[in-house]
Amino acid sequence: MKIAITGYGNLGRGVERAIRKCEDMELFAVFTRRSPETVTLETPDVPVYSLSDALKYKNEIDVMIICGGSATDLPVMTPDLAKSFNVIDSFDTHAAISSHFANCDKTAREGKKVAVISVGWDPGMFSVNRLYSSAVLPDGNDYTFWGRGVSQGHSDAIRRIEGVADARQYTVPVEAAVEAVRSGSNPELTTRQKHLRECYVVAKEGADLSKIENEIKTMPNYFADYDTTVTFISADEMKEKHSALPHGGSVIRSGETSDGVKSTIEYKLKLDSNPEFTASVLCAFARAAYRLSSKGESGCYTIFDIAPSLLSPLPHDELLAHML
Amino acid sequence: MKIAITGYGNLGRGVERAIRKCEDMELFAVFTRRSPETVTLETPDVPVYSLSDALKYKNEIDVMIICGGSATDLPVMTPDLAKSFNVIDSFDTHAAISSHFANCDKTAREGKKVAVISVGWDPGMFSVNRLYSSAVLPDGNDYTFWGRGVSQGHSDAIRRIEGVADARQYTVPVEAAVEAVRSGSNPELTTRQKHLRECYVVAKEGADLSKIENEIKTMPNYFADYDTTVTFISADEMKEKHSALPHGGSVIRSGETSDGVKSTIEYKLKLDSNPEFTASVLCAFARAAYRLSSKGESGCYTIFDIAPSLLSPLPHDELLAHML
Repeated sequence: MKIAITGYGNLGRGVERAIRKCEDMELFAVFTRRSPETVTLETPDVPVYSLSDALKYKNEIDVMIICGGSATDLPVMTPDLAKSFNVIDSFDTHAAISSHFANCDKTAREGKKVAVISVGWDPGMFSVNRLYSSAVLPDGNDYTFWGRGVSQGHSDAIRRIEGVADARQYTVPVEAAVEAVRSGSNPELTTRQKHLRECYVVAKEGADLSKIENEIKTMPNYFADYDTTVTFISADEMKEKHSALPHGGSVIRSGETSDGVKSTIEYKLKLDSNPEFTASVLCAFARAAYRLSSKGESGCYTIFDIAPSLLSPLPHDELLAHML
Repeated sequence: MKIAITGYGNLGRGVERAIRKCEDMELFAVFTRRSPETVTLETPDVPVYSLSDALKYKNEIDVMIICGGSATDLPVMTPDLAKSFNVIDSFDTHAAISSHFANCDKTAREGKKVAVISVGWDPGMFSVNRLYSSAVLPDGNDYTFWGRGVSQGHSDAIRRIEGVADARQYTVPVEAAVEAVRSGSNPELTTRQKHLRECYVVAKEGADLSKIENEIKTMPNYFADYDTTVTFISADEMKEKHSALPHGGSVIRSGETSDGVKSTIEYKLKLDSNPEFTASVLCAFARAAYRLSSKGESGCYTIFDIAPSLLSPLPHDELLAHML
């Protein structure tokens, strides 16, 4: 199937790499809002087009993977492009998913296309594991831990502080909390008890370090409710040790199947590259979007609404014979 | 919805307990091939009927959960009952799943009913995790580890040896192998390197212990390819320490999203009671069977073919708002 990528940042580049791992997919083109000639792809002989020309290629693209930001790009782009293309995005503003779903469902139905939204690992694989586990163990509690990994939102928040040249923030689950949850004791955990925040900061010359540290540690929502460490490093050290975007975490549910009889379910990810893994999940669900559309379906879907067999390149009889 | 249980052994009792955890389900009746008056349920005021009378209650049962053995019961019972009922089973003979699927699909379509087969944790939750992980990380390897837990098939094999009064076999994953897989090194592992087998045996009076131990350790398929320990214990110790049926294990896939960039996905279960957890999975998929049937669907389904949202008692908008 022919895949188009819209938006060529970290995630778009990740999708380009993920497509290379999928034998049944090829990259048709990358669409960008920048000047196409300023964008250089890793894949030879694939064109870069202006997003404003996308409709010209409407009949040549099976699925468009939209790699924009959740704050302002996706709420507009996904419903708009769903009028003309099968689309998929990684919209991750949890509080706004319901309205994004409604908007995409309307336009995709009008266009007789399939839109799949909020695909990645959280929302995404973590969500579907929360769903399976809560359905299987109704009498229980679930816990989501993130990290150790780079939070780009928190890194950006530090970069906006006066005197900061660069910053990287790692979210770190508190191991004692993870172990308490794994033991099945169903602990009540505060925000502070679940995660630590480690900040690495490059200060501008002459900046007031203790003022920066204090501003970070007291920042509401982002850091004030956490045990936060701030370490000042050089620009060279930042480049050498903190250029990657690793992430991961776990979803753990424990509950009782009868009095005193416990089960614990844990789903855990360890990712060298957050954007590349998100991109790999997007590609698997792009396959499902294509198949749903080929069957004549239309409208909006989430990871909850897609039967797992639609994700695999293997035919159904092979799945039964070798994977079940 | 009204659920019937067919077969009242460990698994049937587990389903009875699991139904109590599901607010949208009630136990309509238990069907048995034994004399109904010899079967005493845990739930008051629920009738026990002879399986031969099941058709009388055809219109009162939403889903029948069939709790029989995979060797001889389910290959006959599930396709037969699927003519008249929405059914679900935990058929676990991996090599025969394809033919069981075909048989159930034929009769369920004829009866305009839904059959869901091979539901539990392996086949079941482990299978669906193998599928998700391989679709998301096509360039990788997966590994399934079982245990620490009681293998009932291996325990039975020991019990058939002359001089053995009782036996319990624990399958134990080799921790070094699990760690090697978790590290993302994609090791090649022999059968012996992946699992140990611990056997606890009550010998009959006067039995030749070294002969029993030798017969166990050299038993082809079951033990010969493993490092196996045999410990003789008293009947009292067996009852006291080995009456439960704990199990668990993990499915781990690791792979590359691009050159040298790794991801590792792990799904892990720790179960105090293997049959109760299997029963809990059956109940969640019974809900899906009922919904599929209510939408007019018919035929055979596996865990691969069912969209996760069908498993949850929560409405779709709540799933989007709170779980995605």
